[in-house]
Amino acid sequence: MASTDKPADPETGKEVLPPKGASYEATPPPPKAVDLFAVDVALRFLVFAASLTSVLVIVTSKQTVFQGPLPLEAKFNHSPAFIYFVVALSVAGLYGILTTVASLSVTWKPIFSTKLLLHFAFWDVLILGLVASATGTAGGVAYIGYKGNEHVQWRKVCSIFDKYCKHIAGSLASSLFASVLLVLLVWLSTFSLHRKIPK
Amino acid sequence: MASTDKPADPETGKEVLPPKGASYEATPPPPKAVDLFAVDVALRFLVFAASLTSVLVIVTSKQTVFQGPLPLEAKFNHSPAFIYFVVALSVAGLYGILTTVASLSVTWKPIFSTKLLLHFAFWDVLILGLVASATGTAGGVAYIGYKGNEHVQWRKVCSIFDKYCKHIAGSLASSLFASVLLVLLVWLSTFSLHRKIPK
Repeated sequence: MASTDKPADPETGKEVLPPKGASYEATPPPPKAVDLFAVDVALRFLVFAASLTSVLVIVTSKQTVFQGPLPLEAKFNHSPAFIYFVVALSVAGLYGILTTVASLSVTWKPIFSTKLLLHFAFWDVLILGLVASATGTAGGVAYIGYKGNEHVQWRKVCSIFDKYCKHIAGSLASSLFASVLLVLLVWLSTFSLHRKIPK
Repeated sequence: MASTDKPADPETGKEVLPPKGASYEATPPPPKAVDLFAVDVALRFLVFAASLTSVLVIVTSKQTVFQGPLPLEAKFNHSPAFIYFVVALSVAGLYGILTTVASLSVTWKPIFSTKLLLHFAFWDVLILGLVASATGTAGGVAYIGYKGNEHVQWRKVCSIFDKYCKHIAGSLASSLFASVLLVLLVWLSTFSLHRKIPK
């Protein structure tokens, strides 16, 4: 900060202009660091948005089909895999909005930035593991619902419950997007830490 | 490095001993950095070992049961989820052994360490995503095989194929262990980068 203030002559109190060609290259440029945090805030908000979308789309997937004597119902909580998925993505959404606020606060008080970057990188990795495994779990079950498995005679479900399967596919796409965002976030934190190391 | 050389008197050429209580705290201790790389090498080798175990255990899960007129066979490649699992864990195993060698080379030539740490952190995150999603996918399908799902009339498989299911459970435990190791590796890389930032 001090380097951007123009030095004042102690006697006259007037600003002293630096000599032409004076080098200020050694000072790290602060605006770029703030830009990276702006990207961080944006990515974190997108994680929140993607997780929320994912949860809302799968929770509203309920479908009732009238086929045969009794109505058939499909709900996300008929499968433990989808319940795990909803829990994991809810945690990711909550984490997304909390860290958006935390990251925003850093743009105002840059003094915490290094320590916060470290904490972010630690937690982001855990949430990434959670979201990736949940996407895999739900995806594996959804694939059986879509294609069936004739080796063990598990029949297709999506030929009957079309709306239900579309919701699950949409929800999976959204959670896959959230996983990619979390990878980008860990990369950003690591890269930001790396930038701070003197060459 | 210069700070560890003892300063020499320019006239006599003799070494000048520092006054008692002189502080050398600003110099980062190099032996600890090497220790962290030893941990890194060990963790990477464990990732390789866990992934290899996981692949070997699931590949050898073939079981044939004589029940009814025809023999029933269960193989891992009857399920696309398990094929994805084997591919992902094979990639993780290969990555594990390659980075073990790369990390070992750093303990001999520490000059590359910062750049390599950054590359490791980038790739570790991707491999973590891969292993976590594969564990989730295979786990989701294995759970249906174990418990069945009466809502969609997917019957249990493990009541017939006991050895097959034990192999898959063992393989999943090993891949879960590999995921945990990968989380620790990303934490270690991030922490090592953080240590290099001057306070």
